[in-house]
Amino acid sequence: MSVLVVGSVAFDDIETPAGRVKGVLGGAACYFAVAASYFGAVRAVGVVGSDFPDEHLDFLGERGIDTRGIYRAAGSTFRWGGRYHESLDDRDTLFTDLGVFDGFNPDLPEAYQDSEYVFLANIHPSLQLRVLEQVSAPRFIAMDTMNFWIEGTRPELEQTLARVDGLVINDQEARQLTGEHNLVRVAALIRDMGPRIVIIKRGEHGALLFEGEGVFAAPAFPLREVQDPTGAGDSFAGGFIGALAREEELDGGALRRAVIYGSVLASFCVERFSLDRFRELSGPEIEERFARFRALSTF
Amino acid sequence: MSVLVVGSVAFDDIETPAGRVKGVLGGAACYFAVAASYFGAVRAVGVVGSDFPDEHLDFLGERGIDTRGIYRAAGSTFRWGGRYHESLDDRDTLFTDLGVFDGFNPDLPEAYQDSEYVFLANIHPSLQLRVLEQVSAPRFIAMDTMNFWIEGTRPELEQTLARVDGLVINDQEARQLTGEHNLVRVAALIRDMGPRIVIIKRGEHGALLFEGEGVFAAPAFPLREVQDPTGAGDSFAGGFIGALAREEELDGGALRRAVIYGSVLASFCVERFSLDRFRELSGPEIEERFARFRALSTF
Repeated sequence: MSVLVVGSVAFDDIETPAGRVKGVLGGAACYFAVAASYFGAVRAVGVVGSDFPDEHLDFLGERGIDTRGIYRAAGSTFRWGGRYHESLDDRDTLFTDLGVFDGFNPDLPEAYQDSEYVFLANIHPSLQLRVLEQVSAPRFIAMDTMNFWIEGTRPELEQTLARVDGLVINDQEARQLTGEHNLVRVAALIRDMGPRIVIIKRGEHGALLFEGEGVFAAPAFPLREVQDPTGAGDSFAGGFIGALAREEELDGGALRRAVIYGSVLASFCVERFSLDRFRELSGPEIEERFARFRALSTF
Repeated sequence: MSVLVVGSVAFDDIETPAGRVKGVLGGAACYFAVAASYFGAVRAVGVVGSDFPDEHLDFLGERGIDTRGIYRAAGSTFRWGGRYHESLDDRDTLFTDLGVFDGFNPDLPEAYQDSEYVFLANIHPSLQLRVLEQVSAPRFIAMDTMNFWIEGTRPELEQTLARVDGLVINDQEARQLTGEHNLVRVAALIRDMGPRIVIIKRGEHGALLFEGEGVFAAPAFPLREVQDPTGAGDSFAGGFIGALAREEELDGGALRRAVIYGSVLASFCVERFSLDRFRELSGPEIEERFARFRALSTF
């Protein structure tokens, strides 16, 4: 298998009811890549500034992630600051300093061009499309997007959506994309735009998978404490694509198992700030929580 | 089996994005009793005014519900008006005219006193306690409550909570009751107050059952159209208690199945205004949707 992710690498300042951290490793590409790395090799594409310490790249490398596609540009690494409300459902963005991410130009190393599983994290839809033009024979392409692109770059977004197999998106943005509230109708409208598979992430309420004629409702894992929801969605996508890439057939059963693995990785992600939980997370812990998801939803 | 419910019988004015209705049959006791009636005999206790037409009592009677405990008092039947927001998650109460419900005094007919399964719908906790004093050998007692009693009659509420086996409550009110946000901790705090079983209803996000050492996450059924969420929570409770009363043992498996039957009944309830969906709902449809819940959550 060969999983490719293209997206942000960032420094985050985060405030939650559990505490605050400054300048910690973040970014969609990092969360995705680390989560997916538990299932096999991952290739990452991103950009960092001259201020980005090697230790972060070393951490990704130790997780078996190919970081040749993360290039260094003159300037500052993307920085984001957010403050979560008591409910953890909602957050305020305190600042966004794009830095070198503003000029991000995803050129794939030649060795990446045969990637079979591709995740286009939340970046400009034209850049997402540019990545697709560089992969030779993808088996499964999924993408994320956000309100900013839905509002500002609709035609480009629709072009990209027409080219992917799956959209992994949160409920709020899925509703915004379709102008519809009911999630069954939301998913149908999105599938009319291109993706045959739609996953709607609902934070602490789990995720819904729409594929073929079926709907699958995955619960979120009921945790006694959530320290930091940042990166949960990208960890979900990483677990999902990583697990999917291990499967022989991409049928309904495989997709459902992959959604649960995505939920497992997201549930670990939020237990600590930044990617800290992944620094000590083991494969057996993942399998054990997968089994607990079964216990959680079996009747 | 013998299921008893005590609660409101009402006329509702309801506005939702799907339409509006005036003076339709409503009230927690009605929704509960009709939902539970698909599983066996139900006894209802409530009060109606002189304006309450016999046809409503006839409808309950046709569903096999014993209405001898619904007494008629001089005055007007309880009236409630509500308007739902686009999201259906939220509603504004437009008016509440208690009428004869203000003087509601739940005296159980002698024939009801041996009821084994008891549901105390959302009424003053002292009245809930009064009902418990009249049942001779209950096997399982569950209750609901709301913000009004949590704020205004806390000591009485705690007395009643100490006497029940299960609390069936929505997430917002569960959080208000405990002053805690995280639902795992919320459930633990509620169980410290008495109930060994806690069910937290989350509307379109399903329900969480806490029992023994286990947690069970039941999805909500993804419907293409919801006309009217009124009564969903009481229909859930009716399906839950009704199905539970059919079981031999009240173990984890029985509780989980019952939660799914509750979810099934709630999912039918919201398809139409008032209790209209139940006027034509058949037993086989319930079993078919139960099977679809399995397909929805199996991986």
